[in-house]
Amino acid sequence: MARYSVPLKDMRFVLEALGYEDKLGSFDAFEMYDLDTAMQVLEAMAAVAEDKLLPLNRKGDVEGLKFNPETGDVTLPDGFAEAYKSLCEVGMIGLSAPEEFGGGGAPQALNVLASEMMTAANKGFSMCPGLSVGLMHALEAHATQEQKEKYLTKLITGEWTGTMCLTEPQCGTDLGLISTKAEPLDDGSYKLTGTKIWITFGDHNLADNILHLVLARLPDAPEGIRGISAFIVPKFMDDGSRNPVFCTGLEEKMGIHVSPTCVMSLDGAIGYMVGDPNKGMRSMFTMMNMARLSVGMEGVALGEIAYQTALDFCKERRQGRSLDKSKNDTSASADNILVHPDVRRLLLNIKATNEALRGLGVWIGIEQDISLQHPDEAKRQESDDLVALLTPLIKSYGSERGFQNISDAMQACGGAGYTVDWDIEQYLRDERIAMIYEGTNHIQALDLVGRKLPMKGGRLLMTFQQRVQACLDECAEIEELAPLVAPFQKAVGRLMQATQTVASQGMQDPEFAASVASNYLNLFSLVTLGFIWLEMAKHAVTKDDALSATKLKTAHYFMQMVLPETGLYAKLVGVGKDPTMAFDVEEF
Amino acid sequence: MARYSVPLKDMRFVLEALGYEDKLGSFDAFEMYDLDTAMQVLEAMAAVAEDKLLPLNRKGDVEGLKFNPETGDVTLPDGFAEAYKSLCEVGMIGLSAPEEFGGGGAPQALNVLASEMMTAANKGFSMCPGLSVGLMHALEAHATQEQKEKYLTKLITGEWTGTMCLTEPQCGTDLGLISTKAEPLDDGSYKLTGTKIWITFGDHNLADNILHLVLARLPDAPEGIRGISAFIVPKFMDDGSRNPVFCTGLEEKMGIHVSPTCVMSLDGAIGYMVGDPNKGMRSMFTMMNMARLSVGMEGVALGEIAYQTALDFCKERRQGRSLDKSKNDTSASADNILVHPDVRRLLLNIKATNEALRGLGVWIGIEQDISLQHPDEAKRQESDDLVALLTPLIKSYGSERGFQNISDAMQACGGAGYTVDWDIEQYLRDERIAMIYEGTNHIQALDLVGRKLPMKGGRLLMTFQQRVQACLDECAEIEELAPLVAPFQKAVGRLMQATQTVASQGMQDPEFAASVASNYLNLFSLVTLGFIWLEMAKHAVTKDDALSATKLKTAHYFMQMVLPETGLYAKLVGVGKDPTMAFDVEEF
Repeated sequence: MARYSVPLKDMRFVLEALGYEDKLGSFDAFEMYDLDTAMQVLEAMAAVAEDKLLPLNRKGDVEGLKFNPETGDVTLPDGFAEAYKSLCEVGMIGLSAPEEFGGGGAPQALNVLASEMMTAANKGFSMCPGLSVGLMHALEAHATQEQKEKYLTKLITGEWTGTMCLTEPQCGTDLGLISTKAEPLDDGSYKLTGTKIWITFGDHNLADNILHLVLARLPDAPEGIRGISAFIVPKFMDDGSRNPVFCTGLEEKMGIHVSPTCVMSLDGAIGYMVGDPNKGMRSMFTMMNMARLSVGMEGVALGEIAYQTALDFCKERRQGRSLDKSKNDTSASADNILVHPDVRRLLLNIKATNEALRGLGVWIGIEQDISLQHPDEAKRQESDDLVALLTPLIKSYGSERGFQNISDAMQACGGAGYTVDWDIEQYLRDERIAMIYEGTNHIQALDLVGRKLPMKGGRLLMTFQQRVQACLDECAEIEELAPLVAPFQKAVGRLMQATQTVASQGMQDPEFAASVASNYLNLFSLVTLGFIWLEMAKHAVTKDDALSATKLKTAHYFMQMVLPETGLYAKLVGVGKDPTMAFDVEEF
Repeated sequence: MARYSVPLKDMRFVLEALGYEDKLGSFDAFEMYDLDTAMQVLEAMAAVAEDKLLPLNRKGDVEGLKFNPETGDVTLPDGFAEAYKSLCEVGMIGLSAPEEFGGGGAPQALNVLASEMMTAANKGFSMCPGLSVGLMHALEAHATQEQKEKYLTKLITGEWTGTMCLTEPQCGTDLGLISTKAEPLDDGSYKLTGTKIWITFGDHNLADNILHLVLARLPDAPEGIRGISAFIVPKFMDDGSRNPVFCTGLEEKMGIHVSPTCVMSLDGAIGYMVGDPNKGMRSMFTMMNMARLSVGMEGVALGEIAYQTALDFCKERRQGRSLDKSKNDTSASADNILVHPDVRRLLLNIKATNEALRGLGVWIGIEQDISLQHPDEAKRQESDDLVALLTPLIKSYGSERGFQNISDAMQACGGAGYTVDWDIEQYLRDERIAMIYEGTNHIQALDLVGRKLPMKGGRLLMTFQQRVQACLDECAEIEELAPLVAPFQKAVGRLMQATQTVASQGMQDPEFAASVASNYLNLFSLVTLGFIWLEMAKHAVTKDDALSATKLKTAHYFMQMVLPETGLYAKLVGVGKDPTMAFDVEEF
C-alpha cells in the first residue's frame, strides 16, 4: 500500500525561511493569505492528496487507459473522475488564479506546494489539472477580456481542462518545423488542419470540455518560429457540437500510464486566435515556463514520496549489526538498518537535495508573486529576472536529481524496492519523463547559457549574485554558520569562474557553449541549492526546536557531501568542446 | 523492433588489447582457442543471440509468466523453450566448462563475452543459463567426483538448470539469520524444510529438471554464518518422482518480467550435501563470485544495446541546425541531431565507459583463466588476487554506470525514448535490479574495503599497482600517449591517497570505512577503467585502421570527460563519516 504524508512541517519551515510573510504580506492581493491561513489551505489540499488521489495511484498504473478508436474517446479507470471532482472542490486548480474569474487569488508560492502534493500522490493524474493551470497563465497574459471570461472561469472551476499542442511528428525540440495550418474564416475564427503528437490529456473523461492551445501557421506566415500563431481549439463548440479535433492514438510509455499521451488529429477544427498573429510562441512560452517549474517540482514530489516509503521500509527492516557495537540492539537478532552508514548516505542524499529543491521551487513562486504584485516596477523586473534565470535550473536539475533520488530510495530498500509492493518502481518510471518533456534538460541548459546569461547585459546573473551576497553578509554575523559559508563560497567561486569561461569562449563559439551547457547548469543548480540551505540555516539558528536542529545538520550534510559535486562540473566546463566534437559521425 | 548487432569487432579489439593470445595461448587447455577460432565461436553465438533471443525480448516483457498455484508450475511465453534449445545447441552454457564432463573447455574470457551478448539480446531469459553456469562453478570447486558426473554433465548440456537458494524472508544481506533446516537421513541424504525467497528461475518449463543449491542448517550447527551448509536439492528425483520443493508464488517486479522470482517452499525435500558440513558459504561464494562478474556484465550488455538503439534513432532524427554553420545540411530543413554537442556527450559518456567496462570484464576472465591454468603457483595466486580485487568493482560500478548509461541513451532519443517503441525503457527497467542482487552495491564496497584491501597484508592492491606501473612504463616510451598518461596518473594518485585514508582511519573505525566505502569503490573503479583505456590505447597506436583511431579518441574522451569524477569521489572519501553519522534515527 502506498504511503505518503504531506510534509506540511517542512513546507511551513521553507515558507518561513524564505520570507513568505515578509515578502508577500504587504501586498493587498494576498491579504487573505497570511502564513497560518496559507497552511490551513495547504492542509485541506493535503487531505485530498492523501485520501483521494494516493489510493488510486497504483490502480492507474496497472489498469491504464481505455481508448475507443471509433470515437476517439479516452477513459480513465473507475474512481478518477470522482477524485478529479474532489480536487476541483477543494479549489486546487484555481488556487492562484485571479479572483475576478473565480480563482483563489493565492500566491504562486502556495500553488507550487499544492502541486507538489498532488503530484506526489498521483503524478499521472495530476498532469491534467497541471495543464489547466498552465493554460490559465497563458490566457491571463495573452487572451482578450472576452476570452478570459469565457475560458478562464471554466478552467478555474475545473469544468473544462486545458492542453498544450506543440509537437508534430517531424518536430519536437525544433518548433520552427511546425506545419499545422490555420485558415481564416469569415467570422474571425480559423479552420485548423494538421497532426499533433504527445498531447498530454488530449482526451479524457474527467471534465465536460477540453481547450487545446494549438500552435499553427497562417497561410501567409513567415517560415520558422516567427510564423507561428496560437489558437484555442475547444473539443466541444458552444452549441455542444463536436469540433473535429480527435485523439487517434495513444502512446505506450514506461510510466505515467494514467496520463493519456495522445496523437491529435485536427481535421478542419475551429479555433480562436490567442494573442497576435505570428506571435504564438509567446503564449506557448508563458504556458511552458509555468510547466517547467511544475516539472521540476515533480522531481521533488516523487523524491519525497520515495523517501518516505524507503524510510518506512528502513525503520522496520533489521539486517546485520551496527559497526559501532555500542549501538547494537541486543533485544533482537539484528539491528535496524538505519544504523548502517550507507543506508544513511542514500537517504541523506535525497533529504539534502530534495528539501533544497523544494526551497528553490518556493523561491521561484515567491519571485513570480513579487513580479506580478510589487508596486515598484524595478522590483517587479528584478523578480521577473530571477524567475527567468531559475526556471531552467529547477526544471532540469529537479528532474535529474529527482530521478536519482528515487533510484537511491529504491536502493535503500534492497530487493523489496524492485518489486511493485513498495511502489518506488512506479515513482521511478513516472519520474523519468520529466528529464525529457517541456524541453529536454539540455534545452534548459541552452536556454540558460544562450539566452538567460547574456540577456539584458548579464543583469539576471547580477541580480542572483546580489541576493547571494546579501545572504552571505547576514551569515557573516552568525558564527554558527561559518562552517556552512566556507564551502558555499568555494562553490560560488567555481560558478563565477565557469561563467567567465562560458562568457569568454562560449560567446565566440556556440559549439563550445552547447558542449559545456549541461555541466554548467548542474554547477549553477547546486550553488543555488547551497544558497537555499544557507537561507534555511539562517532561519534555523533563530529557532530552538527539533526540526530546526535537523535542518542545520542537513545543511551541513549538503555542504560537505553534495556541494563538492560543483568541483566536477566546473572541471568539465573547463575542458570545453574538443573531446566531444573530435568524433566524426561514423565513429559513434 | 529491437535492434542489436553483437559488437564483434569491439570484442576482438579488446581481446587483442588485453593480450588474450599472449597470456592464454601457451596453456595446453586452450590449444583449440586461438583468437581466430575464438572469434568464430563468438560469431556462432552471436547468431543465436540476434536471431533467436532478441526477437523474444519484448514479448517476454509484455506477456510475462504464467503460474499455476495448484502445481507450482511456472511457464514462460511461447517460443522461449525453443530459444533455450538453440542456446544449448550452440554450446553456450558449457562453453567454459571442463571437457571431461562435456563442456567446451574455452577460456572464461570468452564466456564473459558470450554471456554479454545473450544478456543484451534477452536479459530476463539469459539469467537461467547464467545460474546454471554459476552452479557449475560451485560444483567444480566443491562437489565430489560422483556428484560432478551426475550433475555437471546435465547442466552442461542444458538438460537441467541450476538455482541459488540463499535469501529467506528475514534475511537477505545478513545470511547469518538463515533458518532453513536440514535433517540427516540414514542413507546419507538430508531432509530440508524452510522457505526461500527471490529464487531466480526457481521453477520454469525450459528444461527437464532443476537443481537447487540450498543453504540450510544442520541440527547441531553453530549460530550465524559458520553454521550453514550447502545442499543440492533436485526438483525431480532419479526415479522421476517430484521432490517437495515447490514454487508457491512469484514476485511482481519493475523489470525482468520473463525471469521468475520465486518463493520456494521446501517441505521435507531431499537434498545432498555439497562440500563440508557448516562450510556451505564456500560453495555459495564460488557461485556468487561468478554471478557478480555476470551482473557487472549485464550493465555492459544493456548499455551496449541501449547505445546501439539510441544511435539508430539519432542517425535518422533531424532537429535544429548545427551551431557550426559549415556543418549545415542544406539539402534538408534540419540537421541530423548527431551534430548537437549534447547528443554527442550523452552517447560518448556511454561509449567511453561501456567499452572500458567490457575490457574490465574480459580482464577478470583472463585472470580467472590464468589462476586456473598457469603452471606457476605464484602466477596463479597473483591472478586469483586480481580476480578477488576486481570482482566487486565490476559488479558494483558496472551495474551503476550501466543504469546511468541506459538512462543517457533514453535521453538522446527524447520523447521517443520514453515510449515502448524504442525498447530502451525495458532495458532501463531490466537493468535496475543489477545494483541490488548478488549482494547490493554497498555490500560490494564493504567487501572491497573490509576484506579485499586488508587481505594478505594488502597484497591484492600491490598486485594491481604493479600492473598499473608496468603499463605506465610501457606508455612512457610512446609519446602519443602522454596526454592520456598525465590525467591517469593524477587519478591513480587520488586512489592512493584515498586508500591511505581508508587504511589509517577505516581500520580503527569500521563506521568510517563503511561510510566512505561506496565512494571509494567508485574511485577505484574509474581508475581501473582508465587503466583499461591505457591498455587499449597502447594497442591502438600499433595499428593503422579506423577502429583503432576511434579507440584513441574515445580514450581521450574518457580521460578528459569521465576520469575527473575521481576528484569528487576522492574528496568525499576525505570527508569521512561525520556528516552521515550525525543524525539520530528520529531525524530522518
